[in-house]
Amino acid sequence: MTELKISQGFIAGENEKRADAHRADYAALGEKLARSNIDIDAITAKVADFFVAVPSWGVGTGGTRFARFPGPGEPRHIFDKLEDCSVINELTRATPTVSLHIPWDKADPKELKTKGDALGLGFDAMNSNTFSDTSDQAHSYKFGSLSHVDAATRRQAVDHNIECIEIGRAIGSKALTVWIGDGSNFPGQANFTRQFERYLAAMGDIYKALPDDWRLFTEHKMYEPAFYSTVVQDWGTNYLIAQTLGEKAFCLVDLGHHAPNTNIEMIVARLIQFGKLGGFHFNDSKYGDDDLDAGSVEPYRLFLVFNELVDAEDRGARGFHPAHMIDQSHNVTDPIESLISSANEIRRAYAQALLVDRATLQGYQNDNDALMASETLKRAYRTDVEPILAEARRRHGGAIDPVATYRASGYRAKVAAERPATKGGSGGIV
Amino acid sequence: MTELKISQGFIAGENEKRADAHRADYAALGEKLARSNIDIDAITAKVADFFVAVPSWGVGTGGTRFARFPGPGEPRHIFDKLEDCSVINELTRATPTVSLHIPWDKADPKELKTKGDALGLGFDAMNSNTFSDTSDQAHSYKFGSLSHVDAATRRQAVDHNIECIEIGRAIGSKALTVWIGDGSNFPGQANFTRQFERYLAAMGDIYKALPDDWRLFTEHKMYEPAFYSTVVQDWGTNYLIAQTLGEKAFCLVDLGHHAPNTNIEMIVARLIQFGKLGGFHFNDSKYGDDDLDAGSVEPYRLFLVFNELVDAEDRGARGFHPAHMIDQSHNVTDPIESLISSANEIRRAYAQALLVDRATLQGYQNDNDALMASETLKRAYRTDVEPILAEARRRHGGAIDPVATYRASGYRAKVAAERPATKGGSGGIV
Amino acid sequence: MTELKISQGFIAGENEKRADAHRADYAALGEKLARSNIDIDAITAKVADFFVAVPSWGVGTGGTRFARFPGPGEPRHIFDKLEDCSVINELTRATPTVSLHIPWDKADPKELKTKGDALGLGFDAMNSNTFSDTSDQAHSYKFGSLSHVDAATRRQAVDHNIECIEIGRAIGSKALTVWIGDGSNFPGQANFTRQFERYLAAMGDIYKALPDDWRLFTEHKMYEPAFYSTVVQDWGTNYLIAQTLGEKAFCLVDLGHHAPNTNIEMIVARLIQFGKLGGFHFNDSKYGDDDLDAGSVEPYRLFLVFNELVDAEDRGARGFHPAHMIDQSHNVTDPIESLISSANEIRRAYAQALLVDRATLQGYQNDNDALMASETLKRAYRTDVEPILAEARRRHGGAIDPVATYRASGYRAKVAAERPATKGGSGGIV
Amino acid sequence: MTELKISQGFIAGENEKRADAHRADYAALGEKLARSNIDIDAITAKVADFFVAVPSWGVGTGGTRFARFPGPGEPRHIFDKLEDCSVINELTRATPTVSLHIPWDKADPKELKTKGDALGLGFDAMNSNTFSDTSDQAHSYKFGSLSHVDAATRRQAVDHNIECIEIGRAIGSKALTVWIGDGSNFPGQANFTRQFERYLAAMGDIYKALPDDWRLFTEHKMYEPAFYSTVVQDWGTNYLIAQTLGEKAFCLVDLGHHAPNTNIEMIVARLIQFGKLGGFHFNDSKYGDDDLDAGSVEPYRLFLVFNELVDAEDRGARGFHPAHMIDQSHNVTDPIESLISSANEIRRAYAQALLVDRATLQGYQNDNDALMASETLKRAYRTDVEPILAEARRRHGGAIDPVATYRASGYRAKVAAERPATKGGSGGIV
Repeated sequence: MTELKISQGFIAGENEKRADAHRADYAALGEKLARSNIDIDAITAKVADFFVAVPSWGVGTGGTRFARFPGPGEPRHIFDKLEDCSVINELTRATPTVSLHIPWDKADPKELKTKGDALGLGFDAMNSNTFSDTSDQAHSYKFGSLSHVDAATRRQAVDHNIECIEIGRAIGSKALTVWIGDGSNFPGQANFTRQFERYLAAMGDIYKALPDDWRLFTEHKMYEPAFYSTVVQDWGTNYLIAQTLGEKAFCLVDLGHHAPNTNIEMIVARLIQFGKLGGFHFNDSKYGDDDLDAGSVEPYRLFLVFNELVDAEDRGARGFHPAHMIDQSHNVTDPIESLISSANEIRRAYAQALLVDRATLQGYQNDNDALMASETLKRAYRTDVEPILAEARRRHGGAIDPVATYRASGYRAKVAAERPATKGGSGGIV
Repeated sequence: MTELKISQGFIAGENEKRADAHRADYAALGEKLARSNIDIDAITAKVADFFVAVPSWGVGTGGTRFARFPGPGEPRHIFDKLEDCSVINELTRATPTVSLHIPWDKADPKELKTKGDALGLGFDAMNSNTFSDTSDQAHSYKFGSLSHVDAATRRQAVDHNIECIEIGRAIGSKALTVWIGDGSNFPGQANFTRQFERYLAAMGDIYKALPDDWRLFTEHKMYEPAFYSTVVQDWGTNYLIAQTLGEKAFCLVDLGHHAPNTNIEMIVARLIQFGKLGGFHFNDSKYGDDDLDAGSVEPYRLFLVFNELVDAEDRGARGFHPAHMIDQSHNVTDPIESLISSANEIRRAYAQALLVDRATLQGYQNDNDALMASETLKRAYRTDVEPILAEARRRHGGAIDPVATYRASGYRAKVAAERPATKGGSGGIV
Repeated sequence: MTELKISQGFIAGENEKRADAHRADYAALGEKLARSNIDIDAITAKVADFFVAVPSWGVGTGGTRFARFPGPGEPRHIFDKLEDCSVINELTRATPTVSLHIPWDKADPKELKTKGDALGLGFDAMNSNTFSDTSDQAHSYKFGSLSHVDAATRRQAVDHNIECIEIGRAIGSKALTVWIGDGSNFPGQANFTRQFERYLAAMGDIYKALPDDWRLFTEHKMYEPAFYSTVVQDWGTNYLIAQTLGEKAFCLVDLGHHAPNTNIEMIVARLIQFGKLGGFHFNDSKYGDDDLDAGSVEPYRLFLVFNELVDAEDRGARGFHPAHMIDQSHNVTDPIESLISSANEIRRAYAQALLVDRATLQGYQNDNDALMASETLKRAYRTDVEPILAEARRRHGGAIDPVATYRASGYRAKVAAERPATKGGSGGIV
Repeated sequence: MTELKISQGFIAGENEKRADAHRADYAALGEKLARSNIDIDAITAKVADFFVAVPSWGVGTGGTRFARFPGPGEPRHIFDKLEDCSVINELTRATPTVSLHIPWDKADPKELKTKGDALGLGFDAMNSNTFSDTSDQAHSYKFGSLSHVDAATRRQAVDHNIECIEIGRAIGSKALTVWIGDGSNFPGQANFTRQFERYLAAMGDIYKALPDDWRLFTEHKMYEPAFYSTVVQDWGTNYLIAQTLGEKAFCLVDLGHHAPNTNIEMIVARLIQFGKLGGFHFNDSKYGDDDLDAGSVEPYRLFLVFNELVDAEDRGARGFHPAHMIDQSHNVTDPIESLISSANEIRRAYAQALLVDRATLQGYQNDNDALMASETLKRAYRTDVEPILAEARRRHGGAIDPVATYRASGYRAKVAAERPATKGGSGGIV
């Protein structure tokens, strides 16, 4: 049986307070959309069926290389993290799965499964870690992991990924996400070609261990932690990897992992067209891999990404079923609130993209009517779809105003009392 | 017989003035290199055998969207341009071929061939133009060319490219370079996927018309003239094109066509590794497609690109024979001087890359000795190889100091007297 | 008397068709805002009082250094341009002034004034041009203008600016905008310090000629047309200029003139705080100085800029009265439509910023409640204020749907019949 | 008496092995320079007199937010760090001072002074830290320090800076460097203007506590640890700070703290021209604040910065005496080796800049001869000045080949035996 952290009754009570205003807003929006021959309930149903996974590490306060400033009630281990994740799902009904990161989330798979079931949570893609060392490992990743010059180090990294697959199988995951920090800090430090050959060979070994019904996601990133070159630096290299490995290999797009000024939505379109879009790590960024809350800085960009996704869905693009996951670092907010809010923003972009009048858009495109094509997207984007998001939550037991309901629940104070305060400390790195 | 624009005697006379100093410098460098077991003459021979094509449009003064400020003696047509190009080659002995741009350079192929032969010049890759309209064309490229929504416009663009191939065959070219400005200025203006499908189909038609011994180069560019999206926006898309088209299709890398902060040398390495590096458009840039003189702003980057090329040459990378071409816009210099200087800089980077002690480098790489690996590259880069470049020119009839010799020759004043002054004018675009 | 290009009756007729739907939308929004204690009519009144100048050059089709593709009915001279501008103002009631560019718009000031009066248009800031040469000028600006090494060239550029002031005085302008392209394309080409000293001295001469009730706006830009260094490269240098010149000198912010990733709204805040914000050149950009339509690519950024403006207005920031002007290049749209749409987008951002609950925002800021502070901005931004914009236009004689009304008016076809087709041509620059 | 970590005899012995080759190289370069009327010994003397401070934190292995991979012999405290610093100075004779970071380097000032004297080291600028929390502090810097909304937190940050001044006075420092991480991660989180007002007021309090013969350096940075906005985000804001505070306040330029594509050398020129250049944090970067070894990625940029410095020196720019400090993060190298190498690179850029023929350069600039102006810089830059650097070291007791001598000395193995191994650990942040 489920052991919910916030009672359904409490949520219902909070919803009751907001019911009238919500009903009025939903009705008003429904009428407006009806004038454009859009059935609001059909949109609401689609939105309610859209889910995004929460990363286990996202419920802890994040940090930078300069410092980490923890908040009250930081989760101590994966079981605490799962409880926090369940609160997000209870309130949003948008995040029924959690993505684990090994070794941090390592635990008895049976206990993980039992806890997940109790909380109504499933498990999304597994994430391996070969970008930092653990105290018990034989070979250091200081100079690389899957692309290291030393075969034993590569083997260790391969084995770790295979272990992630094994844990994942036991808890019902169906995908492995591989992101590595391998690269170099100096011109000359690494031979780009040999380094990539080693990487591809090691990934081939992991791929061989992948169950038939799994998918393998590789994630590119322009830089950091390596600052001169990175082995999987962009979607071009990521595509070469997926193509080399085989049909179960796909590219993962993190919105913050690109060069300045990059048109990310076009990369999404290309990967869909060539059958290699695996999914997303959602977040927002202004400078680098800032890991800010999704849609907080450039909401129109998020919409444009979803515009590609809905377009692909509509035209039935071959092999199109991307995995959605949030990947953020919550440095100055309550992580639970940021994840609630981000799940909403992601659904918001999806709802807005659903409202695009695609037949009209295509007409303008065929007429080279750039202004009206742009306006067609903007018209959908400008629609305040909050009532749809709220209704999608409400219908499935979630909160009309999830952040306010969360604050009213006193959950943070409760876990702060249970979980000892942690120190952030500082790397002393300048 | 050749009708040289600057007499061999004049060059020899100028060289004579500098002979003693040059001999001393060459000897000193030779001794220094000998201490590292490097035979200077072997390097000089390799450098003398390295060539880069000059673009016909490069000998005219370039401009920006704001203005163009012509200099004296602007070439009036392709025959004037060829004469200017021959001066560059006479002095540098590094640029024996010219790359034509159609329609600007359109002329009777026989006359072109005859003129080229007379000047000792061959013809490099042909360049088509579908990024601007000519007065006599049926369909405008305002909204695209090879990816246009209208089939007739695409057909016109295909036919133009096929015409370029035909002209090229008649004058001895062996490659076609296709760069298009197609893209969009507004989100929604174009459907990325359909646009790229149309592009690939049109390119397929061009590819079919390609002679067996030709190569097809496609060139990517992040932006400009389109400012929201560009069809061939990066090397990832460029690779997809080359792979889709077939084994005669390759990717061209222009050093100024990338996102800010991009590690270009790694893109070069990836394209070589996957057999799809077609060649280069050399220039330098600080901001966008600045088309500055090669090596003028970031000379170490140019060296790092050549470090990849020499590495590939050394290991005998499969299918490795890149085409080298300069593509610059000379807005504030005498274009002939800029091209002389750029050809030198490109050879300089090649010479420096040849000096890298690759066995030692590999040793440091295998030891993860990042500092000494970096230092190994730097040591080669720091070598002042100017005596090698001068000697490579001198041995083949070129000038020890080509810019000074050019200035002394009075060539610019002579053509300024022959060719009427042109107006730059201004687009009135702000 | 005014000679309107589109009759008031026609606009009223078009409005009549949309009256019911508009009334319903305005009422619905009014009710929603009332629930937050916001009086919609007060917002509408403020919006109706917000104006932005149209650039005379904006009504012609723009281009890039590669090509220009004119549309039908291109204006032949400033009088045609003024007619086009009047159409924009008639329909939007947001653009009652025009900003001229000399020498292109040079004409008898009396005729300009008469024409402006007839069309109901005033004149905004004057713009000088020393980034391109005219056929009759003694000294070329190839190597700079106000910062040129040659005193006579600087004097010519100063005189041209003083002439702009004189024309401006005669037609009722109250400001001069100076943007120059001076800079360098090669390291070493210019001595940064001496170049800036010369610039400051020349600007000092212009400043001396400025009438007491005028303002002098200087505009910075990171690069283009100069590609290694630019004299007025960023707001830091721009501030130094305004401070050096005196209290009538202010900094102009063009949204597309910054380094990648720059936080522009913060620059706006700094200039306001230090009393030196002169105003804006509105547009949008993704890569460089793309001159795209305002709000078309990053609408949230435009909102954040207006959030600073409304904040400054609210707190009564000292000396705060920025000038608003559009500066765009319309390459693929009907320029009149783009300017109508852009004026709307700018007012949209202003209206959204007016809706921000600033007391609540400040409360969250004081509590370091980052999430709710962000949400407070977002809530205002998500409001679809189109009914407010339409009502502001309607009340002052403009169109409820200005682009549709413009299209229905047949204005473009009419001027296309009157004005001869122009050729775009191409610079032949690659 | 000094307790040198590597004996002078050992260094002399190592030098002896390289003496002949060095003498030959130095003589050859001397002859070459003499042909250009340059006295090599005068250059060597200037180089020998150029010093750069080493940061105490630079001798520990750095890390990223993902991981830190320590090496053997990590210094345990400031006294270990000083010993490591002294090794760098012994071998390079370029780094006679150390810059401390409080609280990490906090110790009894007398002991610090005594240890410094014993090692032949002085103390450069003091660095405060309000970007991370210490275990004993009353108020957290999670939401800012000197610009925090809470007065008590600001006061605490001010007091900490004043304490840094006091420690500095006791050990002979003459400057305080203030870099803060204050900013925001969400639009709306902070009011830019009020935040900056608070910052200026707090800095005013620190400024008041500054001894008369001290200088105050403020350092700007585009982003990180804050990812939406940063209080001191660029040189424009930095200049406003220095101007507001007074004549003892100056701007510090870190080469990695700028927007992509920024022309840093021009910022340096502007700050010199307006009397506000305080000094440098030298390092190199390709993407963000990468803190790579100086000159390792873009050596020509480092040269162009020094070109400005030597130009200012030559013309006797008012108030010009910049402080030089290295600020790097050594993640994959032995930090001592990286600092030795970086000190060399910095001197290399200085030596090359000294070789620029400034009279000739000015002539080309006055003639707008961009090509030859560029070539004049390049000619100096291409000179392999390693013999000068080696001679400058040798004459003052340093090593001809300092990295090789360091390796031969066995210093790292010795301290590794004395100092316990440390764990890097990982933040678990993705």
